[in-house]
Amino acid sequence: MLGASGYAGRELCALVSRHPRLALAFATANEQRGATVELPGGGAVTFVATEDAPLGQAKLVFSALPHGTSKAWVERARAAGAKVVDLSSDLRIGNNDSAAATAVPYGLTEARRDAVRGADVVANPGCYATAILLGLLPLLEQRLVAHGATITVNASSGVTGAGFSARTDLLFGEIAENFRAYSVGNTHRHLNEMRAMLGELHADADLLFTPHLLPTARGILATMTVPLSREAGETTDALAPYRARYGTERFIELVDEPPELRHVAHRNVARIAVVRAAHVRTPTLLVFSAIDNLMKGAAGQAVQNANLMLGLDEAMGLPA
Amino acid sequence: MLGASGYAGRELCALVSRHPRLALAFATANEQRGATVELPGGGAVTFVATEDAPLGQAKLVFSALPHGTSKAWVERARAAGAKVVDLSSDLRIGNNDSAAATAVPYGLTEARRDAVRGADVVANPGCYATAILLGLLPLLEQRLVAHGATITVNASSGVTGAGFSARTDLLFGEIAENFRAYSVGNTHRHLNEMRAMLGELHADADLLFTPHLLPTARGILATMTVPLSREAGETTDALAPYRARYGTERFIELVDEPPELRHVAHRNVARIAVVRAAHVRTPTLLVFSAIDNLMKGAAGQAVQNANLMLGLDEAMGLPA
Amino acid sequence: MLGASGYAGRELCALVSRHPRLALAFATANEQRGATVELPGGGAVTFVATEDAPLGQAKLVFSALPHGTSKAWVERARAAGAKVVDLSSDLRIGNNDSAAATAVPYGLTEARRDAVRGADVVANPGCYATAILLGLLPLLEQRLVAHGATITVNASSGVTGAGFSARTDLLFGEIAENFRAYSVGNTHRHLNEMRAMLGELHADADLLFTPHLLPTARGILATMTVPLSREAGETTDALAPYRARYGTERFIELVDEPPELRHVAHRNVARIAVVRAAHVRTPTLLVFSAIDNLMKGAAGQAVQNANLMLGLDEAMGLPA
Amino acid sequence: MLGASGYAGRELCALVSRHPRLALAFATANEQRGATVELPGGGAVTFVATEDAPLGQAKLVFSALPHGTSKAWVERARAAGAKVVDLSSDLRIGNNDSAAATAVPYGLTEARRDAVRGADVVANPGCYATAILLGLLPLLEQRLVAHGATITVNASSGVTGAGFSARTDLLFGEIAENFRAYSVGNTHRHLNEMRAMLGELHADADLLFTPHLLPTARGILATMTVPLSREAGETTDALAPYRARYGTERFIELVDEPPELRHVAHRNVARIAVVRAAHVRTPTLLVFSAIDNLMKGAAGQAVQNANLMLGLDEAMGLPA
Repeated sequence: MLGASGYAGRELCALVSRHPRLALAFATANEQRGATVELPGGGAVTFVATEDAPLGQAKLVFSALPHGTSKAWVERARAAGAKVVDLSSDLRIGNNDSAAATAVPYGLTEARRDAVRGADVVANPGCYATAILLGLLPLLEQRLVAHGATITVNASSGVTGAGFSARTDLLFGEIAENFRAYSVGNTHRHLNEMRAMLGELHADADLLFTPHLLPTARGILATMTVPLSREAGETTDALAPYRARYGTERFIELVDEPPELRHVAHRNVARIAVVRAAHVRTPTLLVFSAIDNLMKGAAGQAVQNANLMLGLDEAMGLPA
Repeated sequence: MLGASGYAGRELCALVSRHPRLALAFATANEQRGATVELPGGGAVTFVATEDAPLGQAKLVFSALPHGTSKAWVERARAAGAKVVDLSSDLRIGNNDSAAATAVPYGLTEARRDAVRGADVVANPGCYATAILLGLLPLLEQRLVAHGATITVNASSGVTGAGFSARTDLLFGEIAENFRAYSVGNTHRHLNEMRAMLGELHADADLLFTPHLLPTARGILATMTVPLSREAGETTDALAPYRARYGTERFIELVDEPPELRHVAHRNVARIAVVRAAHVRTPTLLVFSAIDNLMKGAAGQAVQNANLMLGLDEAMGLPA
Repeated sequence: MLGASGYAGRELCALVSRHPRLALAFATANEQRGATVELPGGGAVTFVATEDAPLGQAKLVFSALPHGTSKAWVERARAAGAKVVDLSSDLRIGNNDSAAATAVPYGLTEARRDAVRGADVVANPGCYATAILLGLLPLLEQRLVAHGATITVNASSGVTGAGFSARTDLLFGEIAENFRAYSVGNTHRHLNEMRAMLGELHADADLLFTPHLLPTARGILATMTVPLSREAGETTDALAPYRARYGTERFIELVDEPPELRHVAHRNVARIAVVRAAHVRTPTLLVFSAIDNLMKGAAGQAVQNANLMLGLDEAMGLPA
Repeated sequence: MLGASGYAGRELCALVSRHPRLALAFATANEQRGATVELPGGGAVTFVATEDAPLGQAKLVFSALPHGTSKAWVERARAAGAKVVDLSSDLRIGNNDSAAATAVPYGLTEARRDAVRGADVVANPGCYATAILLGLLPLLEQRLVAHGATITVNASSGVTGAGFSARTDLLFGEIAENFRAYSVGNTHRHLNEMRAMLGELHADADLLFTPHLLPTARGILATMTVPLSREAGETTDALAPYRARYGTERFIELVDEPPELRHVAHRNVARIAVVRAAHVRTPTLLVFSAIDNLMKGAAGQAVQNANLMLGLDEAMGLPA
């Protein structure tokens, strides 16, 4: 595991260390090299410098190195013979035009399972993108969104989404009893991969995404407003497209009540509910999608992808 | 003060007890009659039964009795010669068709100041409605919203907005580290007064409002997506309509950064920011409006209205 | 499982439902009979009335019924042939003088393992008592406490310790940003079992216990001040008695730094640190003991005891 | 105001800017020079470099510069003709042996009012020391503590007590749902001034103080166990010494129930309750003392002292 000192990195170390078929070969963290830190749920790991990582000892390497830095290490791990799940944005669709990058599957597992299964490198999606795209996928794939529409996405994330960094704006004294939007005006960097995914699905719709910072440690809830195509607008069973698409998925929970963060915490699931909006002239679906940003939004999905890449059961070692 | 045992009621008792020109004649709470409770910021009040309220002793009566119950007590207070600010929804626009009700000004002070000034009874707005309508007012009055558009409103409130009631879903253990939508599908009861206000302003737009419950005690943040009319879409200064409308308002703060709940806590202000959305085909304005649900959203605005009704300075006794 | 609707009951249902060798035969909750509720970590359970519990179908019954009510149901479960772990205080030492009760082992597993192993009924300890007694056990057993001394115990618990009940003093709005002592003056009901345990260990010391209510969902931290006997006062290695006593225990973690609640959350462990107090004339040891009140303080320890009673590995199905 | 960028500094700027007779001449913050920051409760301040502070323009200077740095600036402010309230520990009793320092009154106002009134320089007490000493003062002055006893003090503070600094251990993600002791073993630096105060009062007792970090922004609660002298042990009215000592104090609240942090938040008061411990052989008093660490524990007490030094009403500009 490269770049393991952040919240997602430590969560991933914990998952790997309890995985029935995986073991943690090494965990790197340059600033904390030599430090031993506790893992969530028990256990501990001692960090080595990234330069000292014995890449050749691992069949599969996870990289949670910073955006921009990760790509070069992915190549080094590949050269050493390891498969790679990259949690940075470096190789995600929409973030990189190079030929190499376009060959890297986007690891939104439920959308790209077959590509992931055969891949040597997978780009693990961003946390917001995971919650949002899983919430929209059935509508996009089944062409139920009105042409040219704007899908409004308001999402809120717990503070671990901002990483484990010494910033005064993330202090308890600044976050408790507070709530605010950020990256406003449709400028958040996860829009790249979300728009690219809409492109791959040939969807003719705009995304208008506004993230917010919650006074919680974990969790993302996305509330989405989707103008429906004429045919979709006439359907009475709003959940039908979701049941059709996700019926057999083990990590997708379709629910009748609006999903709550506490019900997805520490679990590798996306919980989704939909409801038709009353009292509006444009037929509109409200979609709610909740995940744990560190699990299905990062470390859990990374293990899910790694399981597929290694030919293991997709759910192995994952808390459902 | 009638119905003073809830969060808004106690906040109002505290404001009145520190007001330079007002004094608290009585505070009623049937279930807590005889109990002495502390007020926020110090001081205490002893509740009497609502039936025992010496209505004739007060020049102005505040009622925070439950919806449905309040109206009859407003009439009794009027009969006893008192002016009334009613914090329930009973007399708000859109909630009551009777002739009597339609004569009651809707106490969104910045929108209806003149009507409030001369009124004997004022219907204090709902907390969500206050945040949302203050955020939309300049656009609606200046006809800058696209005709037939849907204005998407996602708003989040602290738990005091749900009242001081013994419900297991409001326990600390259920709210901390949690976040969820409620009253989904465009069904929240504040929609009545908001739609009625749009009607009064002759606005041709739908509201699609989804409230959420925050793990905070106080505060409301509304994030609004407003499709703009052609002319508004060509303007480069998104804040201009707000400066024009609110330039001299003492309780409206126009800011450049997205407003944060902590900056409005315990204050009788609405803090508003706007930004144009990039990367969408439909010209769209993002409007952010933050208030303290117990202050500008309830007790503070009630005192603001009472000041006007009594011929006092509008800001007297209010923390700005 | 009898009385399963509270926080500890649902935690226990979740543990049993994931246990490799146990399955949940039934879960009762009179007020919520017929209701299906989600379990922490996923899954759900549908409650039946306690009267309808098929006691005969279970080899072992857990009871988390209210204090006073539980005892009769323990007898019914025994009559039906089931072993019982009783989470109420009814059968705990110090709470009941009857001959039957005195024959029931006190399920502080690390202190009474052999008695638990052979028992048909075990009284699971209170959450505070678990944290406190595990912190004091090595000192008491090895007679290192000064004769006649007062051991001062200040402990703080998350709000799930107060149960899942609709009380206004447990609302998020009352608990967030708050902290207070309760049951002050050495009157908390867990003192009975703690004093009885001191009696069984022939310890000549008083306990002065003051509980506090934390703005967290989970966790207990006990900070204890223990005047040392002359011999103990001369020792330089304060942790030595703990290593000697707990060296091989799988659910006791001896640490160098003061334990933190987050490191024991969702885990069936007690984490203990000790340090000698400087600048006091009386040789004094500070003992810190942290547990998750719902795991090692309730459901986890109940499963630990059940494993022993059923001849299973003590750690089976428990998150360490 | 020197060193105004921290939590206490900004709180003090806010108090001064709303004070009826004071105005803020300048506020310094070297790292944030030129930055304009919002003040709690509204308003804003622009920082200048400390070197650029126009010391001569102020009749009274507050310094919240770091410990070790403050003393030299106190001297410069004095040389410029200003009176000084120093919020650092540099000039507090027990922290400095020089003759100059010993002439500086310790600004625990209720204990040293006359000395403060005539002083040119006052050393404002530490936050923990304020809560603890105000809780003990009546017992110490009236010689009600057993000779040679150890007073056990467990206190818990909100995170603003640790200052506004970019430390990963103060991030929301590390503090929420957490609780821990720190500076264990009787080593916290506020012990110096507390022991010095005991010395000034000729008290023959040890303090054993263990601070804890709460998941709240504000507030300190000290829970103290005080072995009583024979005479005190025979008294039945435990609160009598407190009423005798504090009867006319405007910022001390003696209460019957254990004090709660929420009742002192944003207020310049210490709220104190006492109760006799049952079931212990040594007559023992439990003392609970709660303050807002930023108000009575820092900025509020600083203004209280400044009011006295300037011949103003002691309560002026202070929220009681």
